[in-house]
Formats: sequence, C-alpha cells, structure tokens
Amino acid sequence: MQAQLIALDWGTSSLRAYKLGPAGVVLEQRSLASGIMHLPSEPRDIAGVRCSDGFELAFDAACGDWLDAEPHLPVIACGMVGSAQGWSEAAYRNTPVDVVSLGKALHTVRSLRGVAVHIVPGVIEQGRLPNVMRGEETQVLGVLHNRPAGGEVLIGLPGSHSKWVEVVGGCITHFDTFMTGEVFAILSKHSILGRTQQPCEHFQAEAFDRGVQVARSQDGQRGVLSTLFSARTLGLTAELAPDQQADYLSGLMIGHELAGLPERARHTPIILVGAGPLCARYQRALALCGFAHVSLAEEATERGLWQLALAAGLTQPATEA
Amino acid sequence: MQAQLIALDWGTSSLRAYKLGPAGVVLEQRSLASGIMHLPSEPRDIAGVRCSDGFELAFDAACGDWLDAEPHLPVIACGMVGSAQGWSEAAYRNTPVDVVSLGKALHTVRSLRGVAVHIVPGVIEQGRLPNVMRGEETQVLGVLHNRPAGGEVLIGLPGSHSKWVEVVGGCITHFDTFMTGEVFAILSKHSILGRTQQPCEHFQAEAFDRGVQVARSQDGQRGVLSTLFSARTLGLTAELAPDQQADYLSGLMIGHELAGLPERARHTPIILVGAGPLCARYQRALALCGFAHVSLAEEATERGLWQLALAAGLTQPATEA
Repeated sequence: MQAQLIALDWGTSSLRAYKLGPAGVVLEQRSLASGIMHLPSEPRDIAGVRCSDGFELAFDAACGDWLDAEPHLPVIACGMVGSAQGWSEAAYRNTPVDVVSLGKALHTVRSLRGVAVHIVPGVIEQGRLPNVMRGEETQVLGVLHNRPAGGEVLIGLPGSHSKWVEVVGGCITHFDTFMTGEVFAILSKHSILGRTQQPCEHFQAEAFDRGVQVARSQDGQRGVLSTLFSARTLGLTAELAPDQQADYLSGLMIGHELAGLPERARHTPIILVGAGPLCARYQRALALCGFAHVSLAEEATERGLWQLALAAGLTQPATEA
Repeated sequence: MQAQLIALDWGTSSLRAYKLGPAGVVLEQRSLASGIMHLPSEPRDIAGVRCSDGFELAFDAACGDWLDAEPHLPVIACGMVGSAQGWSEAAYRNTPVDVVSLGKALHTVRSLRGVAVHIVPGVIEQGRLPNVMRGEETQVLGVLHNRPAGGEVLIGLPGSHSKWVEVVGGCITHFDTFMTGEVFAILSKHSILGRTQQPCEHFQAEAFDRGVQVARSQDGQRGVLSTLFSARTLGLTAELAPDQQADYLSGLMIGHELAGLPERARHTPIILVGAGPLCARYQRALALCGFAHVSLAEEATERGLWQLALAAGLTQPATEA
C-alpha cells in the first residue's frame, strides 16, 4: 500500500513514528526514546549539513529514511514537541475545539531537509483554574472517530497527569487534570511511604481494592493528604504486607481521582485510553465505584493524527478502489 | 534553683534536652542534631566503657554533664526515640488517653551509666484506618495543662505529618494525620511543580491566600490531586509569578488539609502548636476558612514532659516556699 502520511507522537519522554497508508492504516511504526527532554546530542550530517540540533537529529532518526524514499510525504506531529520547551511553540487553542477547528490551526516548523512538520496545538480551558493539554486532544479526537457524533462522552486518559475530557457532539467542551501518576511515583520514591514498600511481581488486587474503597468511604472525605497516612499505619499494624503497600497506595490515589469526577459521570459513557495495565487498574476502580458504562480505546493517537491531517487537507480520505 | 528533671524531646531529626527546675521551669536547654536518624557514630568513653552505640552517644552528649553533676536526676523522653527504630520500643497506648494513664505507662531503658530513661509511649487510635503519633501526645498534654479540664478542644500540630487531636475533658479521644508538609516538600523538590518555582525571601500573602481559596472553592471539591495542577497552569498563563508559586502551593495544600477537618471544628476552640512561621500560615488559613476560635501555644513539649513526670511520680509538684 502507498504511504500517505508520517504521523509523530512526540512527548516528553518518547517519540513514536507511524507511516500511515490509505484510511490511516499503520504500515510501519517505530518507538524512540527521544522525547523532548531526552533528545540526541551527537552531531550528524542531515541533508548534507552538519547538525547538532536535538530536534532535527531526533526527527531524522525517526523518519529520515522514510522521507529519503518519499520526500513529499506530509508530516504531522502532536504532543510536547509543540510546547514552549519543544521544537517550535504551537499556541494553545481555547475550548471548545473539534477536529475541524484544530486541524485548521496546525503550526508549521520547517526542518533542515525542507520538510514542513505540522504540529497540533495543545488545548487550553480558560477560567478561574486554567487547564491545559498537549497530545491528549489528539487521542480524544482519535477515539471519537467512527463514533456517533451526538451525545456526551467522558474520555479518561490515565497517566502522570491524568486527563478527563468531556466531549459533547464531537466537541471537547471541558477537561480536568489529576496529577495522580506523578504524585504516586514521587511518594513511592521519595516519601516515608516508599520506605516500607516492597516490590511485588503480581498485582495485589485485594490491597488495590481496599485502597479504592477507603478513598470512597467516609474517611476518604478528609482527602488524600489524610488517607495517605493509612498506607503507613496499616503497615505498622500488620494489616498490609510490605509487598501490598504499593498497590494499596495505587488504589487509594486512583480512588481519590475518581471521587473528583462529576456526579453525572456515573451515567455517561466513559472511554479509557492509555497503557493497558494502567487502564486495567482504572477500569477495575471505576467498576468498584459504580461507573457503569466503561470501555477501552486503542490506537487513539495515530487515528487522531490521521483525522487531523484529513481536516487540514494534508492527506485525502481513502477512495474506493 | 534546684534541678528536678531532665526532659528530652527526641525526634527523627533532632534532640532537644531541657533541665527543668521546680514547677517545670526551664533552667537550661540544648538542641542537638542527633535525631534517631542522625545519631553520632564516633566511639567514645562513657562511664569508663568504650561505646559506639549511637543512642548512648547522643544521650551522653545531650545531658551527660548534667548527670555527672547530679546523677540522681530523673530522665524522661518523648518522640521517635520510643519507636521500633528508636532506642527501645515503647508500645503504643490506645485512645482514649490522658496524662495520668500515659504517665503510668512510661517505658524504661537503662543507659550505660545506669540511669533509667523513661520513654513516653506513642498513641494509637485503632479502627478501619488506624492512626499513630509519637511526641505529639506529649505536646497536647503540655497544652492542656492550666486549661479548664472540661469541654472540647481541637489541637493542631502542623508539620511534615500534621496532627489534629480532639480532646474532651482532658482526654485525647480522636486524632487525624495529614501528610501535608512532607507532600509539599517532595512536590517542590521532585515534581514538575518545583521546576518553575523560584525561591522568594518574603511570604507571598496574596498567592498563599489564593491557594487557600481555591482549596475551599467548588474546584477544590475535586481534591488536591486535581487542584495541584493549577500551580502549573497559573504559571503558564502568567497569573502566578515564579516566586509566588511555592506560597500558592502551600496555601492550596493547607487549605485542603483544613477542608478535611470536621464541620463542628468551626465552633470548637482550636490551639496550634509548632514552629512559629508554620503556625502563622495555619492561623492565616484558618481565619480565611472561617474558623473563629484559634490561639497559639508555646513550650508545649517541655510542659507535657513535666506533667507526665509528675503523673509518673518521677518528680514532685512545687510546694510553696
């Protein structure tokens, strides 16, 4: 099949490159460690010029050979590559946004080899507490593709900074961020709670569920700053073994995150996007908390990039052969 | 004045020693860095014996010369020195406890020089989520001294692990822990929030108050895992200067802690105990959140140790001269 588009998912810690064919089918993909905070630094020749720019070097490593073979392939990218610390800043777009408005707002940076790289802007929700995302908007649009356009959907993107994105009629109308993943990681690594944790090969379902239940119990009303301490005291009183403490803490924190979702989310279709094991934890916790309509989505980023490229006119919908 | 008691406040990171006279008046005091996690290790002669035990060395450095001069002075100690990682474990006592029951439950360890060191046990509240403290119970008892015995008081002890202790009729009946101080410290040091913080010499009152207000606003209902991210986004949108971000985060987290106090605390006398600048932050936040009856207590630990020594019969109340 003929390649149609190079699509880059370029975040803080990794860079995934996709060569997409007709209808956005993935022909080839690669994963590099060259996130914007981990760029290569070894100078190399690119298009006959000695180059030491990390973004150029990473871009060339990700898809230089694809462009050598097909120099006219359009390139689209999403994620932190468009942040102030990225290759070139793509200013945030205000909510509400949909695939058409975002596709028309791509920001272009020209690479050393002359190729235009079209960067998807992040999204900002203004207000008393502004909220921002970069990359997740593309995943959301990928999830929405092929779904009925009407109605409300809540899309959860668990991670370091989990996002919960409300979509109404195909439009991103509101979203919240929870720093659950990052706080969990630094608590485990740097706090007193980490000192008594022992690693465990297997998922400790009972401990995880207990954490979720505590978060949604009356004790949980005091907030996570209070319930956190139970990860220590339940260890002191031998109610939690050292190898159960990490999963207890995980359940506790995810439970507190879910307690922060709006009440009507219980009756809204929820779609989870992200790494499989993490989504499985969220799915389990959502079920425990009584959220009824939960499903999982895959390949959201590459589908979103394809849809945005279509909206931008960088590529064409597949025609019947 | 004649010395009556040596009182040690021996925690994780520091050791304070007091020589107390009649009625518990402080005759002399010292502060050492020899908390139980920072014990000395250089061997030294104690009572004619070569010694390399960190607890013995620290004890000798803290009050060896006082005991050389007055070998029969009784010694009492509180804090992490009685934990499983301490000099000798003083098992937790269950709530409810008062000065009499705790004073009768002192745990004794005999030092190399033959002196009995009487360690105050920590307190545990059993239940779905057990809670523990070591050292704070002594401060609470110190605060209670000279107050009318009846009625309810809520005593707040801000710190790495803030405690809120409910006292009814002179008895500790219930307490909660909030890991506010430790979580604030590791967020500032290890999370993305710390990266944009700039240190500031002066307290940024406006930013602090804003954080408190966010915690108690409708946005705050989503919980601290969500509002935390605003410390970043308000920076991105230039609504918070880099040198305001730390105090905003401080106000936000203290605000979430206070939101976790029971509703009736608004009408209960509140007494704060702890480091002056931190208590000032809590006092400010409590006022913003509508807690009406807040006062500060000082010298709580040494007074508590004196009261416990009296209850244990280690020393006698002052008699009129």
